[in-house]
Amino acid sequence: MPKVLILSRDAEEYYQRIEAAHLPALEKLAAAKNIDEALALGNDFDIIFGEPKRMRGILAMLPNLRWAQSTWAGVELLLDPALRRDYALTKASGIYGILMSEYVFGYMLFHERRMLERLQAQKEKRWDESITGSLRGKTIGLLGVGSVGAHLARTAKHFGMTVRGYTRASEACSEVDEYFHGEALFDFAAGLDYLIGVLPTTDSTRHIVDAALLERLPAQAVFINVGRGATVDDSALINALGNQKLALAVLDVFKQVPLPTDHPFWQTPNLLMTFHTSGPSLPGDLSLVFIENYNRYINGQPLLHQVDFERGY
Amino acid sequence: MPKVLILSRDAEEYYQRIEAAHLPALEKLAAAKNIDEALALGNDFDIIFGEPKRMRGILAMLPNLRWAQSTWAGVELLLDPALRRDYALTKASGIYGILMSEYVFGYMLFHERRMLERLQAQKEKRWDESITGSLRGKTIGLLGVGSVGAHLARTAKHFGMTVRGYTRASEACSEVDEYFHGEALFDFAAGLDYLIGVLPTTDSTRHIVDAALLERLPAQAVFINVGRGATVDDSALINALGNQKLALAVLDVFKQVPLPTDHPFWQTPNLLMTFHTSGPSLPGDLSLVFIENYNRYINGQPLLHQVDFERGY
Repeated sequence: MPKVLILSRDAEEYYQRIEAAHLPALEKLAAAKNIDEALALGNDFDIIFGEPKRMRGILAMLPNLRWAQSTWAGVELLLDPALRRDYALTKASGIYGILMSEYVFGYMLFHERRMLERLQAQKEKRWDESITGSLRGKTIGLLGVGSVGAHLARTAKHFGMTVRGYTRASEACSEVDEYFHGEALFDFAAGLDYLIGVLPTTDSTRHIVDAALLERLPAQAVFINVGRGATVDDSALINALGNQKLALAVLDVFKQVPLPTDHPFWQTPNLLMTFHTSGPSLPGDLSLVFIENYNRYINGQPLLHQVDFERGY
Repeated sequence: MPKVLILSRDAEEYYQRIEAAHLPALEKLAAAKNIDEALALGNDFDIIFGEPKRMRGILAMLPNLRWAQSTWAGVELLLDPALRRDYALTKASGIYGILMSEYVFGYMLFHERRMLERLQAQKEKRWDESITGSLRGKTIGLLGVGSVGAHLARTAKHFGMTVRGYTRASEACSEVDEYFHGEALFDFAAGLDYLIGVLPTTDSTRHIVDAALLERLPAQAVFINVGRGATVDDSALINALGNQKLALAVLDVFKQVPLPTDHPFWQTPNLLMTFHTSGPSLPGDLSLVFIENYNRYINGQPLLHQVDFERGY
């Protein structure tokens, strides 16, 4: 009979939602905001549900652990080879598509529609009817096409864009007009209006956005990163922006969080930062992800969004 | 045999595009940027193509006029009862849907995603991870559901919103979840998160956005106007914003253009102005509208987007 530990900043809200769902066969449901609280609740849990940064510390103390459901899409913290891997790890997925589309297209439109310039014109009481750009007919390149990338592709088609996708091998999303793999990274980048980073950190994605890649982008291109900070060579990005080889970068993810105040990103011209807010983890959605997987767990079905420890996502 | 006069700010570009299309049966094609240039080209034209503000002045001087194609969606300038009405007037239509969706959803996302606040945080080197809003599950009310409104409805559904439409009678757009007509205006407004003005100016839409309507909106609501400035009671809007009865207004259209620098809109808090730039008239698109209608004209088919002088749109 399953015993579930919720270990999360939002422990109380998750507890209420999961309790209200009256999960079948559930023997024990407990909720803690931190490891100390959790340990007081026992160590007989076979299921944990929470943020990777909290779950990481308790992994070794749960002898019966069989499944961990992450509230985050990014689970790198649990992939450290020094940590145990004898349980099923599932990540948050499928719920971030709309949220990330809102973020990415919000900032693309912020750029095309010259919102900053209009604000400035209004301040100066200047009737600024300079013509705006449009997404229509422009080309977006998705660096990574998982469930978030697929939603971005759909939104791009809605706005009349051409969509390129760069993946290891997958060509599953029919809204991608052209796929690129492996060595074709530079072909993928050539002529893009928008480059969108949606990649997890793995050995093959670390610093994939480097000087050589940035050089392939046209000078009017915009780079938006909602994947992982480690996929970007920070200095190369700063140089590209400084040398007008890139029009704008919008970063939601960073190598270090919060970013130290002496990091040059804070003051790099044409670089906007959004502090890891692009895909807010909403307890309502995440509870549904957990509940769906719980029902699969007790019925012996394959869990959704299970992470391959070797592959890294 | 048709004789076409192009009378437009972009006369040269239109001339090239239309000439390149080798229109059948075309006897004469001429292009002018203003009325003086136009008059030097003769007065035997049966077709004119251009901006209402230019065409208005030449209407009385073209005895053979049978059809005028506007490059604008708004044709009020040609509806003055003092002007002739013995010709077919067609407006630009069908091409503004994507552009207006970009504008409207761009500003909705600007608001939800707290873009202004993030910019300020970056300036202050402050890690601002305050949670953002999302369009998903929110309710948008379209004041007017023509071809632009229908595209806005599609975009709203893409982002998971509930869509209400207020029209005189039409219920043609299947992406609208609930329609309202006539007296039901206040029911339409109650509980909206976003109110979008997409109406032309007619006797029944003048000042439709007045104090009484604004009062029905929740205090967190946002009003965006891409229709016509005359549909809004300016003072009522300024009062609603001043009394925190409305969170934000984004205005692209105004009663007077350019807006005089002493108009209070320039300095009204939580009011953003965009100077009639939401739907840029793109010669490439508009030439296609003209060419399609020209082919209908010479084949005696009904013209697309013909305006009813009495109805006013």
